[in-house]
Amino acid sequence: MNIKRHELTARYAQAVTHDNTVYLAGQIADDWDKDITGQANEIFARIDILLAKAGTDKKKLLTMTCWINDFSNYTGFNQAYDAWIDAENLPARATVRAELLDPKLHIEIMLTAAK
Amino acid sequence: MNIKRHELTARYAQAVTHDNTVYLAGQIADDWDKDITGQANEIFARIDILLAKAGTDKKKLLTMTCWINDFSNYTGFNQAYDAWIDAENLPARATVRAELLDPKLHIEIMLTAAK
Amino acid sequence: MNIKRHELTARYAQAVTHDNTVYLAGQIADDWDKDITGQANEIFARIDILLAKAGTDKKKLLTMTCWINDFSNYTGFNQAYDAWIDAENLPARATVRAELLDPKLHIEIMLTAAK
Repeated sequence: MNIKRHELTARYAQAVTHDNTVYLAGQIADDWDKDITGQANEIFARIDILLAKAGTDKKKLLTMTCWINDFSNYTGFNQAYDAWIDAENLPARATVRAELLDPKLHIEIMLTAAK
Repeated sequence: MNIKRHELTARYAQAVTHDNTVYLAGQIADDWDKDITGQANEIFARIDILLAKAGTDKKKLLTMTCWINDFSNYTGFNQAYDAWIDAENLPARATVRAELLDPKLHIEIMLTAAK
Repeated sequence: MNIKRHELTARYAQAVTHDNTVYLAGQIADDWDKDITGQANEIFARIDILLAKAGTDKKKLLTMTCWINDFSNYTGFNQAYDAWIDAENLPARATVRAELLDPKLHIEIMLTAAK
């Protein structure tokens, strides 16, 4: 089968590859005490690792869905995003407010990329 | 055209197949009086049927987006999820809080699968 | 690379094409003073333009994720949706409540289509 699953947890795969598309699970920070920028930086570093395991990188991003716990954090999120994103290869992005697994979590990101 | 649409309602298709990817509409329970585990069990049974109509099954899940009305229901949701999911073939999953069409709805699930 | 990015903003592409799938960014209205139906009409007109730029049209919709700020607006949203959608080619749709970038925004829509 042309499906590969990477970094399995008890309940989900952090990345799933099908043909030449890569789907990442919702990514949250490990350190819940960080502010939005710190949590986003941590998530983007983890995304780089997951994309590499799946055989691709951020130049091939397709979509990004961002769930932010409070839009007062939007500027802080974009600060991390702008520093990380490849400006020549921007994804189709959406950001909406959502409460996350824990109130200390400021941001969760789910994305897809091409291989 | 290499698009097939299954179980049409007035406004959407419960499943759409394109090439070898299957996209399901957001699934909710029929019985809104059930608790989270009961509603999730109902949804998973329906997902099995929709995947079969689209020519695939839960072993080929790619992504799962779960909208839960209250994270106090998270354990109850995972109880149904763990009983249903194929542990050898875990999807890329994200779960965030969202209010749904009716306050009695505890969970809505949208997913994609390979054919 | 078989990825094309359309209508770039500072932070994202309004549409990204990969192989024969098109991914749109979350679409919001320009005129935030319009009611839900007016905002949705504006979004659907913009989606038509983006799909055309990506080389496709609404007959090839695959999925639609709708974030609505208040389910009291659901009927007004569906009024615009029913007038716009191609009833012969319905997408897999999900609609959940979410607060959006600004409280005046009633609806945001993210979708995918085939080419």
